Amino acid sequence: MNIENANTEATERMMEARPVLVGLGKARDVIPGMRDNLLLHAGPPITWERASGPMQGAITGALIFEGKATNEAEAQALVESGEVELEPCHHHGAAGPMAGLIAPSMSVYVIENKTHGSTVSEAALTTGGNRSFSGLNEGYGKVLRYGAYSEEVLAKLRWMEDVMAPVLADAIEASGGIDIRALLAESLHMGDEGHNRNKAGSILYTTKLAPFVVKATDADTASDVLRFLGDNALSVLNPVMAACKAMADAAHGIEGSTIVTVMARNGTDFGIRVSGLGDRWFTAPVAIPQGLYFPGFTAEDASGDIGDSTITETAGIGGFAMASAPAIVTFVSGTPQDAINATLEMYEITYAEHKYFTIPPLDFRGTPTGIDIRKVVETGITPRVNTGIAHKDAGVGQVGAGLVRPPMEMFEEALVAFAERYGF
Amino acid sequence: MNIENANTEATERMMEARPVLVGLGKARDVIPGMRDNLLLHAGPPITWERASGPMQGAITGALIFEGKATNEAEAQALVESGEVELEPCHHHGAAGPMAGLIAPSMSVYVIENKTHGSTVSEAALTTGGNRSFSGLNEGYGKVLRYGAYSEEVLAKLRWMEDVMAPVLADAIEASGGIDIRALLAESLHMGDEGHNRNKAGSILYTTKLAPFVVKATDADTASDVLRFLGDNALSVLNPVMAACKAMADAAHGIEGSTIVTVMARNGTDFGIRVSGLGDRWFTAPVAIPQGLYFPGFTAEDASGDIGDSTITETAGIGGFAMASAPAIVTFVSGTPQDAINATLEMYEITYAEHKYFTIPPLDFRGTPTGIDIRKVVETGITPRVNTGIAHKDAGVGQVGAGLVRPPMEMFEEALVAFAERYGF
Repeated sequence: MNIENANTEATERMMEARPVLVGLGKARDVIPGMRDNLLLHAGPPITWERASGPMQGAITGALIFEGKATNEAEAQALVESGEVELEPCHHHGAAGPMAGLIAPSMSVYVIENKTHGSTVSEAALTTGGNRSFSGLNEGYGKVLRYGAYSEEVLAKLRWMEDVMAPVLADAIEASGGIDIRALLAESLHMGDEGHNRNKAGSILYTTKLAPFVVKATDADTASDVLRFLGDNALSVLNPVMAACKAMADAAHGIEGSTIVTVMARNGTDFGIRVSGLGDRWFTAPVAIPQGLYFPGFTAEDASGDIGDSTITETAGIGGFAMASAPAIVTFVSGTPQDAINATLEMYEITYAEHKYFTIPPLDFRGTPTGIDIRKVVETGITPRVNTGIAHKDAGVGQVGAGLVRPPMEMFEEALVAFAERYGF
Repeated sequence: MNIENANTEATERMMEARPVLVGLGKARDVIPGMRDNLLLHAGPPITWERASGPMQGAITGALIFEGKATNEAEAQALVESGEVELEPCHHHGAAGPMAGLIAPSMSVYVIENKTHGSTVSEAALTTGGNRSFSGLNEGYGKVLRYGAYSEEVLAKLRWMEDVMAPVLADAIEASGGIDIRALLAESLHMGDEGHNRNKAGSILYTTKLAPFVVKATDADTASDVLRFLGDNALSVLNPVMAACKAMADAAHGIEGSTIVTVMARNGTDFGIRVSGLGDRWFTAPVAIPQGLYFPGFTAEDASGDIGDSTITETAGIGGFAMASAPAIVTFVSGTPQDAINATLEMYEITYAEHKYFTIPPLDFRGTPTGIDIRKVVETGITPRVNTGIAHKDAGVGQVGAGLVRPPMEMFEEALVAFAERYGF
């Protein structure tokens, strides 16, 4: 067993994975292991008791959406009694932004890794195999993923499910599939970093689907769907997250590899998984993001770091590709030079430079790809993550956006486990 | 008369002009002074005899489109006899890319400057006043604007005119107008420079129109129109050029101003106009652009510099905003640092920094805006222009893209004229 060979193989697989959006279906029909009494959530495993405000709010909203509860107390009772179970999205090949709730009757995007097909490792197969999944993005404002669950939030979710989802399903099928790796490569040349800034990717996505959306429904509905997709600068975030999940999954389960294949937060704990260390989570308490707050809110209002969207940094984009997105600093704070420096720093802790994701301002250098737990521990540099900031209380929603770092102890603990497992 | 005050007024007007796309109509119906035997073309005035290959080709194609000729010889006879007249787009408030042909029965975008309304100067009124115009963009490949006029070229023009134009006219009207200055400000943060790279702007434009296109026609036609707009990374170039024309027009006719308000080329001559020097053209022979050629072509095949698209640089974008668009170097040659340097150099010869067009990689500094003929002559630095490259022969089309500079003697001649006019 040679770590360098293993990491070369893991990062090659991560970069060569070609995630294509191939469809849309109800979670209960398409996600392996999904069942009627199960809710999927962001981050490592969590209980109701330990869950953050936004996570409890999102669970409540999801159960109201499913018709199983009418308020937070009922939701709590269902979860605490075990009548409704909670499992991480990452245990089912899925990735969800912020609270990341996926309920059985919600529609999810289906991504297929066209490169590796059935050769995805056994370990990865336990999390979804060749396919990955994510829900529909709700846009900005009061939304379930930030823990809001008012009637306004639920009404939008119902419109998305009943009206938009069938149209998108038909349009995606008629399109023959949308290559999300190619779309990301293009959007990184258009000022996106793929996590907090997906303006270009979202309109690329809308533009690619538009000719098919038009034919999938009546003119009024098509008009509404195209406006919803086109006005939401995060429309493509969820397909991008599922694509990053597919790329990271392709790198998972490589014997002897120290490459991180999952980073995820549930609002209480940050958790990582490592390619050569199977399905074990290494966790530690989350930090509070630093950033810019919406008018009327301050850091006092912020929830702990939350969401599976760190799968973007895991796959070499997001905070790692900040240099591609100088305009993002108006949203997350800092200067364009900070954005360049963020990317340069990430080369210190990654194993490869991406073959397909390149950064024009750095002379088209590939993005830093494949976090190596050895390098994190050696350098003392933790990954940089771009993120939204949720209110700490259930039912409120987004209060800002900013930057955060995962806790170092997870990487240290993983390195110890690696040494034990491989006998160094 | 104080030159500084005059230039401040001119550049303030240029920046405060707010060009909004308000409609689409047949050139003969909406362009002031358009008539049935008139063709508008790019650049300063030209005759058939002195016209370049691509200009002759485009004139031929336009006359075939109008049903007035069937080949180049007939086109030549019509123009040389005076039966068909040629006048610059810029004499009618219009701007056309490359050969820039606008024929009476072609549809043109209509832009209104919402800031200055009827207060646009008398001098500007002679060129269109508060409104400006440009044709529909044909996309890449064999196209009229590069001098191609095969049946394939004409068939596409007919589809654009008969099928797409009525849909766009309805969609633009239903949209209530599209603010092109705002769209440009956004696309400059998405890796565009607004002249040779309009990828982001074109999908922003498509996305904004899509909800209205859907309702303006049947599903099949809407699908075709959205695919045509969305697949063409230059869809928005023509509205952008008309918008820049509106902004530059707002700065024209300011007594005592040394700011350039038109730069345009017809393939034979480069021509400029200056705010304080009325409608006089200062001209000199064009250069051959330097750049990257499509496979199978070399600099030997290139036509002289051609097109009204230099109105973008005149208004502070295009080559002047290269620093916003590092990825453009894959198309026009050079390195991302060259792109930064191009913008930095242009601050040497401009009077203002744009209030609304900002450059993220330069810490959101405003683009260099308002070319001052005094500074050009003093520094010896001529404006930088991004451009497409046409084949020198009629009927061929585009062979590459690159960079070019206007001849210095025009600026020197204009400065002499300025001194004579104002008695320095």
